[in-house]
Amino acid sequence: MLTLHSPRHALHHGTELKDGTIKPSFEHPQRADTILAQVRAAGLGELRTEQPHDRAALVAAHSERYVQFLETAWARWTATGRQHDALPLVWPVREGGQAPEPEHIDGQLGFYAMDAGAPINGGTWPAVQASAHVALTALDAVASGEQRAAFALCRPPGHHAGPEYAGGYCYLNNAAIAAQHARTLGVGRVAVLDVDFHHGNGTQAIFYRRPDVFFASLHGDPLRSYPYFWGHADETGAGEGLGANANYPLPHGTDWAAYSPVLTQALARIRAHGAELLVVSLGVDTFEHDPISHFRLRTADYLRLGQQIASAGLPTVFVMEGGYLVDDIGRNVVNVLRGFEDA
Amino acid sequence: MLTLHSPRHALHHGTELKDGTIKPSFEHPQRADTILAQVRAAGLGELRTEQPHDRAALVAAHSERYVQFLETAWARWTATGRQHDALPLVWPVREGGQAPEPEHIDGQLGFYAMDAGAPINGGTWPAVQASAHVALTALDAVASGEQRAAFALCRPPGHHAGPEYAGGYCYLNNAAIAAQHARTLGVGRVAVLDVDFHHGNGTQAIFYRRPDVFFASLHGDPLRSYPYFWGHADETGAGEGLGANANYPLPHGTDWAAYSPVLTQALARIRAHGAELLVVSLGVDTFEHDPISHFRLRTADYLRLGQQIASAGLPTVFVMEGGYLVDDIGRNVVNVLRGFEDA
Ligand SMILES: [Zn+2]
Ligand SMILES: [Zn+2]
Repeated sequence: MLTLHSPRHALHHGTELKDGTIKPSFEHPQRADTILAQVRAAGLGELRTEQPHDRAALVAAHSERYVQFLETAWARWTATGRQHDALPLVWPVREGGQAPEPEHIDGQLGFYAMDAGAPINGGTWPAVQASAHVALTALDAVASGEQRAAFALCRPPGHHAGPEYAGGYCYLNNAAIAAQHARTLGVGRVAVLDVDFHHGNGTQAIFYRRPDVFFASLHGDPLRSYPYFWGHADETGAGEGLGANANYPLPHGTDWAAYSPVLTQALARIRAHGAELLVVSLGVDTFEHDPISHFRLRTADYLRLGQQIASAGLPTVFVMEGGYLVDDIGRNVVNVLRGFEDA
Repeated sequence: MLTLHSPRHALHHGTELKDGTIKPSFEHPQRADTILAQVRAAGLGELRTEQPHDRAALVAAHSERYVQFLETAWARWTATGRQHDALPLVWPVREGGQAPEPEHIDGQLGFYAMDAGAPINGGTWPAVQASAHVALTALDAVASGEQRAAFALCRPPGHHAGPEYAGGYCYLNNAAIAAQHARTLGVGRVAVLDVDFHHGNGTQAIFYRRPDVFFASLHGDPLRSYPYFWGHADETGAGEGLGANANYPLPHGTDWAAYSPVLTQALARIRAHGAELLVVSLGVDTFEHDPISHFRLRTADYLRLGQQIASAGLPTVFVMEGGYLVDDIGRNVVNVLRGFEDA
């Protein structure tokens, strides 16, 4: 399988508010380096770096003002004399959700965020932009028919980033940008399947009112798992998008035996939707030893996960999301891709 | 003037997410100690400590589940092995505002918050409860007719705390609890006047749909000042409360000459509403040297502020809110109270 990646991911490494204190993010550069090394060692196929794409491909999935915010936030934050990573401090909850965009950078940081886990520093924007370009380049290779499938080794990840908010280590939603790019290139119906442990709230929000991009997600029940406020089964889309959103919240401790039949359901919904291209938000934080998640998939299960996804018979772009146990994530990712190829 | 206070305020001292890092809160115990010392030195009048009040007086202004959350949050946070102050990490923004209450303490911390500036530790609840009791005891003294006015030296402050969220150093909304207590005791119409530099978003939210409690606030324009998402002039109440909310956002650099005529307008609205009792959310972070705010009131202006509030001719309870330049806040508070008494 073709793998797309970018060395620019390493420009971004930040801190997060966790356990009541500021810590280096669990989402750190070693993650992508390990995955790339394992892809290489496994001889999975060709490796390419990203092709630049027009900004238009980013604002097709996000608002113009949000992309502009990401581009300029660090400069505006440091212009006020601050040197730590930019982190928001106040959020537009409840009636505050109706408020206009604040002018002050401190207000904008909260306006364009849903948590305190998406720090912005000097390396963030170039890495975020490159990560989106990795996904776009992978999509190009598949949509053109050159490849049956491709793996976009994106970092930072993207699936928590909404139409105009960052959060959960995510800034631009690489999977949504890729899915939208497929639409722009003329693919009629697209599906995004999210198998990260955490609900892909950002992807859901971007396509929630649209019938042309189906979103399905298997994830830890938001009553007990991050992101807590999105991912319930009764979130099924709205307006013209009603019925084009399928959430499968699963209990802590879910293993492959419990997971696989639900994945079968999700794939059946995707087929019924008539999708012609599949984007997979690939997180391997469903792993039994993941340090921040609560499912129990084993390394061998990821081969089966890849096989099962292949059974949909669709041109497929895998987009890297989460997975935080550095030593094992590479192996588990390679197993998904190998399972897909060998199916 | 009678002053109510509680030594239990000192039990609470926390940290906050500010400038991208965790710092000790600007809202620290010395604030209340300094004010109390100045009130004593000025010979302002009798000093009393708080009388316990029923929990019912708290849940008359906040939701039952929120009060229960505050009572138990620290125990539940530490039960998960964490030792730093409990701070939220993810917020129910946008569509997330429709989500049910999460079961996990980490989700609940965000569900019941609007910023990362209301840390919870072992001393928080006893101090918060005492602070509300200080306000209730002051209200009792005025509503009974025993006193024409009283000063509730509350700490932690309260005006950012909404029906079920903490934020901005605030947990229980002492001013709203006092205003509601006046209603419970039979006062027909009540007004809350908020002269803190920051918009009293919590008080506004608690009474936003009610015609019986008028809320007026003079504050830094939320486009440029915390809390950023509330406090615009077009927020005028809703439903039966339409017209009973008046916001006066003012530009950075506002001095007494610009402030006083706006205060006159706010007091005219309060009179027109027919209020029989006035609760003043008294912040002195409007001071020219306040470290986190941007108005330019001077120490002598606070005498005039007190005089002008007295001109409403209403039984009045002053409830302490913000003000962060420790050396001067005591003097400025005493000037407001003395100005009121001498009017
Ligand atoms: Zn994840
Ligand atoms: Zn204030």
